[in-house]
Parts: sequence; structure tokens; C-alpha cells
Amino acid sequence: MPLNEFDLIARYFAGLTPARDDIRLGIGDDAAVVSVPPGHDLVIATDTLVAGVHFPPDTDPVAIGHKALAVNLSDLAAMGADPAWALLALTLPEADAAWLAAFAEGFGRLASESGIALIGGDTTRGPLTVTVTVHGRVPEGQALTRNGARPGDAIYVSGGLGAAAAALALREADADPDALQASRLRLDYPEPRLALGRALRGLASAAIDISDGLLADLGHLCQASGVGAEIDVDAVPRHPALTQLVRGDDTTWYDWPLAGGDDYELCFTVPDAAQSRIAAVAESTGIALTRIGEITPGEGLECRHADGSAFRPGAGGYQHFGP
Amino acid sequence: MPLNEFDLIARYFAGLTPARDDIRLGIGDDAAVVSVPPGHDLVIATDTLVAGVHFPPDTDPVAIGHKALAVNLSDLAAMGADPAWALLALTLPEADAAWLAAFAEGFGRLASESGIALIGGDTTRGPLTVTVTVHGRVPEGQALTRNGARPGDAIYVSGGLGAAAAALALREADADPDALQASRLRLDYPEPRLALGRALRGLASAAIDISDGLLADLGHLCQASGVGAEIDVDAVPRHPALTQLVRGDDTTWYDWPLAGGDDYELCFTVPDAAQSRIAAVAESTGIALTRIGEITPGEGLECRHADGSAFRPGAGGYQHFGP
Repeated sequence: MPLNEFDLIARYFAGLTPARDDIRLGIGDDAAVVSVPPGHDLVIATDTLVAGVHFPPDTDPVAIGHKALAVNLSDLAAMGADPAWALLALTLPEADAAWLAAFAEGFGRLASESGIALIGGDTTRGPLTVTVTVHGRVPEGQALTRNGARPGDAIYVSGGLGAAAAALALREADADPDALQASRLRLDYPEPRLALGRALRGLASAAIDISDGLLADLGHLCQASGVGAEIDVDAVPRHPALTQLVRGDDTTWYDWPLAGGDDYELCFTVPDAAQSRIAAVAESTGIALTRIGEITPGEGLECRHADGSAFRPGAGGYQHFGP
Repeated sequence: MPLNEFDLIARYFAGLTPARDDIRLGIGDDAAVVSVPPGHDLVIATDTLVAGVHFPPDTDPVAIGHKALAVNLSDLAAMGADPAWALLALTLPEADAAWLAAFAEGFGRLASESGIALIGGDTTRGPLTVTVTVHGRVPEGQALTRNGARPGDAIYVSGGLGAAAAALALREADADPDALQASRLRLDYPEPRLALGRALRGLASAAIDISDGLLADLGHLCQASGVGAEIDVDAVPRHPALTQLVRGDDTTWYDWPLAGGDDYELCFTVPDAAQSRIAAVAESTGIALTRIGEITPGEGLECRHADGSAFRPGAGGYQHFGP
């Protein structure tokens, strides 16, 4: 199998990603041709995973396929977009049929669940690198952005944080195997918050996915909006697996949820007038939404404990701390 | 400079790619937001270049920036699309400011010439790999495809072929330095045939770019169209640099233009009724268009010399020969 023939590689994906009637021409020509219905904007993101950098070398190829798409869908979720089409640029050391079938299985399962179709790509020989480009749709002018947060807006985060960072750090550790396994699932099979992003259209004033870590990404949101934030570090929701693996007096209790990264949850801000609708969104999506602080005038993040005392960040992982 | 912050990397591109009024949100959020005007289809392609595979390690980063975009624009040209937006996924061993500035210069110059704006991307640490995803527009239903060739259609190719393959093969050779330099320019700075692609809308019955080599890509076109082809291998236009570097009785005289690859020219088919318009297209675009054969019923490529005798392909580079 020639590795530079994407048509051949794409056979592994046949039937695994959905058919869509907005695709005029899919895989097999110089480019794909698609149509965007009137009244909609197109949302486009791309993200690369490099072996040994973004996933451990022993990662199951099913998980690599899942995660390569998931990290991209997470960007669409943060914009409130409905997934439509994906392209896959796959650099592989060799054309390994078993690896490709497993990768396609992971990619295809999530694509099916998300309604996103694979419409094109490229395969090249080289060190294992996966770049996915995703396209989604939003009603015109309704994309969620980073720059709409205003002083007084409440800050929310979805799900529970810190488990993916724990999985990475504790891979070789002697710890509760069930909790390790649960945290490893968070690292390898992140679930993009697409339904939540959709539900936040017209409700959130700003949104971002927190793949770089909560504080770093909230810092990006604040910078884009020209505001600051006050965070209660004890209110930040921990993933259940983290609470089993780490004690509250360990610095990682704070480090991992605040700065560990690889949490594909959404952080978003909500104006006062819309607060009352948040509980309904949590219920309809089945995703926990936790209020962790408030947007302030000025700039920078101020982190406090529940008792009001100042929080001092730990040694590692805070290079992005502040605006 | 943190290598995972595309916003920072993107500063090198600031002002180098054009502003466009169909971009609602460019670099700096989780995703870009763009709008497609009614009555248009969207054309999307992605291509990866890997160091040491797609360009020699000693390649000037200006050329890498140019070529990474050019090979993608060539796919848009083959579809007859007008370039609109690009995303750049850049994997780099280190954040080298001089390298990035040079890369951005090459990418930006071609982007400006082509009217394509950089709207997003990702940067990661790892072995040098460049994936570009491009988006173009065509009037609804007017994209050029591979599958419309019919028996009796004439086969044309643009420009002159074989120089890029010569540049790769003769890098260390003792040959005419001016011709070597000219062929190296074809390898490093391919010119996507965008104006030609546009002019072929409604005129060509099928089109493809011949990055994999003329015979391989014409084979793809024939296969997609369910037809065969007869080619006069002596009519295939050679690039002037090739004619200086190679003698007509050398096997490379045929091998490189027919199968060398890295020629970002277009091969296209034209029905009888439209033949008379080809000369005007060549004149308006300033690109030589050479008739090299004819589409036949059945399947497979039949290659003949000008005198009608059968052409037997050389040893190397013909693995894609035939359908």
C-alpha cells in the first residue's frame, strides 16, 4: 500500500464517519467540495498531536484516533458550533494495517457520535504526527468567543478537572488501580462538550476550552475580554478519580485541576441576567456546571481559598499564571 | 516563547497575509469564524510536507514556507477555486526566530499574491512537519473534478515538466549551474496554476494537478472518469531547464517529465466543442498549454512516440503506471 495515497488509507474509515447531504464531493479528488447553508457561519480549527509529546508512546491507537478528533471537536464546542466535516493529515513511520484499523475505529466512533464526516486528508511517511482540521456551523453571528466577558459575570467550568494530569504524572506510580484507570480514560478519551457549547449560544458572554489548564485558558479569556477574574480555588470541581488519587493537603490537589491541562472542559462566563438558566443547561446536557468565581474590572487572575485567604500557586505548571 | 502558543507564532505572519472581509474572527480564539457567500461552494484540501521526505534538509525556510502553501494552492487550482483562507499546523524541533521569520516570509509572499488569509493554526514541538489546510470558493456546482473526462476529449498539460525531478536527482551532480539553479527553483518555488484553474471552469471536462507525476495523476483522472487515454510521450512539454540538463536519448528525458513528480502543473481534458477556446486561455493566463493526447474508451494509458511506435517506460518511478 503506497503511503502517499490517501484514498487507500481512507478505506479504513469507510462507513465509520457519517454521510452528510452538504458534501458535494468527498475523499478522492484534489479537494473536497461542500456547501454551507445560508444564514450560517463556518467555524474552523486545527490541532496536531505528536507522539511522545501529546500522548505517551504506549497509547492504544484507538485512543490516538479518538483524541486527535476530540481535541479538535473541543474547539468547536468552545465556539458553540455544530460539527460538520473533518480532514486528517496523518504522518506515519510505516503503513501498518492493524494500527490504521484501530486508529480509524477510535476516530470513526467519535465522528459518528458527533455527526462529523471525514472529507479529505493526506498521508505521509515520517515520525507519527496527527493533524486534524475540523469545520462546524453556527447560526450567523452566534459563535461563542473569548472576548465578551464583562465585570460581574459569573465564571463557570464544566465537569471535573485534574484527572488527565494525574494520569500522566502517576503512570508508573503505585496507586489505586481503579482510580488510575479512570484518570487514564480522561487522558486518552476526552469527551468534547459539544452539547454544552450548543446550549451556551446566546447565554454565555465568553467561552474557551481549557486544554492548556484552567488558569492559563481563563487568563486567555480575560486578556481577550480586557478584564480580570477572581477565582475560589477550592470551588474548582475535581474529577472523582483525582479525589481518590490525591489528598487535599498535597500541592497536586491544586496544581493538576488549575494548571495540569488536557482537561477538555469548557470555562465560560455568564451575565447576571442569564444565571437562572444555567441549572437547566446542566440538567439538559447532563454535565455538572460549577461556579468558580467572577469577572472583575482591571486585569489578572486573583486566586483565593474558600476562607478568603490568598492562594499561592505551587512550583510546577504555572508558567502561564496571570494574564 | 512557548511553542504551543499559536498566537505568538502568528506574530511572524502579521501583515504578510491579506485581510479579507469574509473573516468574522481570525487567529486568537479556539477557532476561526468565516462566512461563505450564497451561491458558492467551499473547496477544502490539506497537504503535509515532512523534512527529509518532501524537501531536502538543506532547503531555505523561505522556500519551505512557499512550498507548504503552494502544494495546497495547487489543489485549489485543480478544482478551479478562488483561494480564501488557510490554516497552518507547524511542528518544529525548537522555536527558532530566524527560521520562523524566513518561513513566514515565503508563506506570506505567496499568500498575498494568491489572496489567501491565514486564519488559524497550531504549533507543536517535534520533528519538522508542516500541514496546511486551504479553503477556496467556486460558484455553486462549478468545481472542476477528476471524473468528467469522456472519450474523444483532448488531454492538455500546462507549463513544462521534469525540472523538479531533475533538481532532486542532480543535486550533487556536475552539471550546468544555471540550468541546475532554474530546476531547483521549480522544486523549491512551485507556482500554483490558480488563474488557469479559474479560466478552465465551464471549459475543461476534468482536471487534476500532477504533483505525483503526469502518468500517475492522469491515471487517477482516467480511473475516476472510467476512461482510458492515449499519450504522445514526445509531445509532453519539457521544462527548458530539463532540456539543458538531459539529452533526448537518456531515459531520464522521459522518466522525469512523465513520472518524476513535484510538477505543480495541471493536466486537464477538453471536449471537442471547447477546443477553440484553449488558445485564448493560454494567452490570457500566460501559461503554455500543450495537447499531449486524447481520452479513449476502456481503461489504461497507452503511451506512444511521435512516430506511432510503442513507448516502453524506464526502470524507475513508474510504479503508478497504468490505471
